[in-house]
Amino acid sequence: MNDYIHRVQYYETDQMAVVHHSNYIRWMEEARVEFLDRHGIGFVTLEARGILSPVVGVECRYRRPTHFDERIRVHVELREYTGVRLRVEYEMYNDQSGELVSTGASTHCFTNMQGRPISLQRDYPDVDAVLAAAVIPAKQKDE
Amino acid sequence: MNDYIHRVQYYETDQMAVVHHSNYIRWMEEARVEFLDRHGIGFVTLEARGILSPVVGVECRYRRPTHFDERIRVHVELREYTGVRLRVEYEMYNDQSGELVSTGASTHCFTNMQGRPISLQRDYPDVDAVLAAAVIPAKQKDE
Amino acid sequence: MNDYIHRVQYYETDQMAVVHHSNYIRWMEEARVEFLDRHGIGFVTLEARGILSPVVGVECRYRRPTHFDERIRVHVELREYTGVRLRVEYEMYNDQSGELVSTGASTHCFTNMQGRPISLQRDYPDVDAVLAAAVIPAKQKDE
Amino acid sequence: MNDYIHRVQYYETDQMAVVHHSNYIRWMEEARVEFLDRHGIGFVTLEARGILSPVVGVECRYRRPTHFDERIRVHVELREYTGVRLRVEYEMYNDQSGELVSTGASTHCFTNMQGRPISLQRDYPDVDAVLAAAVIPAKQKDE
Repeated sequence: MNDYIHRVQYYETDQMAVVHHSNYIRWMEEARVEFLDRHGIGFVTLEARGILSPVVGVECRYRRPTHFDERIRVHVELREYTGVRLRVEYEMYNDQSGELVSTGASTHCFTNMQGRPISLQRDYPDVDAVLAAAVIPAKQKDE
Repeated sequence: MNDYIHRVQYYETDQMAVVHHSNYIRWMEEARVEFLDRHGIGFVTLEARGILSPVVGVECRYRRPTHFDERIRVHVELREYTGVRLRVEYEMYNDQSGELVSTGASTHCFTNMQGRPISLQRDYPDVDAVLAAAVIPAKQKDE
Repeated sequence: MNDYIHRVQYYETDQMAVVHHSNYIRWMEEARVEFLDRHGIGFVTLEARGILSPVVGVECRYRRPTHFDERIRVHVELREYTGVRLRVEYEMYNDQSGELVSTGASTHCFTNMQGRPISLQRDYPDVDAVLAAAVIPAKQKDE
Repeated sequence: MNDYIHRVQYYETDQMAVVHHSNYIRWMEEARVEFLDRHGIGFVTLEARGILSPVVGVECRYRRPTHFDERIRVHVELREYTGVRLRVEYEMYNDQSGELVSTGASTHCFTNMQGRPISLQRDYPDVDAVLAAAVIPAKQKDE
């Protein structure tokens, strides 16, 4: 529930008549933005306080192709938050069929507006607390 | 000669198996960037001096479809430069067949880094002189 | 009412900290897709019947910059439908402030899946009727 | 040598004034396209013979930000080719400073035009031979 919905646009398709793989990386960002928003720590809020969260890594597995006009439901889970680094995982589903179409992950650090690494734990304890509370460790999920 | 060459990328195609129309707007920017560079007033140079040139209008006519892997030659001409506003026109050709595939135009104003309109004529006479000299009026072209 | 809403994504911004102008061309497509869907003649329906509607021209005026996370409301009106050609006009508003941020237009022809021009009036009278009924001529609007 | 050069475009930057991370996935494709071209098995050649090579996975590590107008040199190496699956690895450098800015990888299968998996080894032995010969195993590299 509360997953992000992306409707596939025509400009996201390629000449194989499926969505070009680079767009999934953007859907992950769209879903992450909305997820943080709902937790009261959206990008706009964070940037206003001087916090950037650059992507230091992404990965994506493509299981089934997706097509124009399909609704893709993106489920987001925070993982492995350390106070200075955050790993976010994504499951993308065809919202009509319910099929898992893709899984992905992004890893983030936190910097000030000059690009210097910062520790949320030390400098922004309220943001740190929200993230720490939202994390679902992989272990806990498996049990 | 000295036209800009863009090689069509796979991610620029759509499910009609031709280039999606939005990409031509980006090719016009690519060609404009290189054109200004060659005239010594590239974006990096201008921004370092505090000059931005936002786009206030674009237009594009699509005459023939373009395809993955084709080389597109973009011919750039400056038009109607007034000291505070610039119109740039573009002709895009399939570089192999020589066919005209598209024509376009972009209109620009000039602002400082805070987005306030500026007059190049008054504040940056050297940049103004380069642009004024590079303009090819439509009339002159027809003769 | 029933206008299309686009939420501005982070990947649509550029280093001027505003939306890159090429993205508005894509928003126009997003809104056009939804508009035709609501009229029962969406892209998927049309392509299933063998009808493509390539873009033969676009234009866009940028009146005010738009920013990450803003909600843009796109109002669509069909204009000048001739049975073989369609002009669509767009007004884009900041949905919070109500300010007009951009106006645009796209012109379309209709082809079969092999790219041959077709006349909707002759070959697809039901689609033709829907488009003809949805057109709001510029004159009528002004009165 | 023979690495692919990508010049960073303005539309690839975001409001952090660096390249948006999704674009590196596209640069990897640009470099892969050119690499295969130089080996005589470019996308156009392969598609003409009925071979598609969908991406089944991508990953990218961002080590240093990249900026508008920089030239990025992308070094491509084929890895772990099995006849039905291929892993490609990428190193991206700032071409002026020589600094490594990013590393990435993409994994591909091979299908016919209907999306059915095929074995190059069995069905296209000449393409198979080119790929097999171009592979640089990770072990060999380390020695």
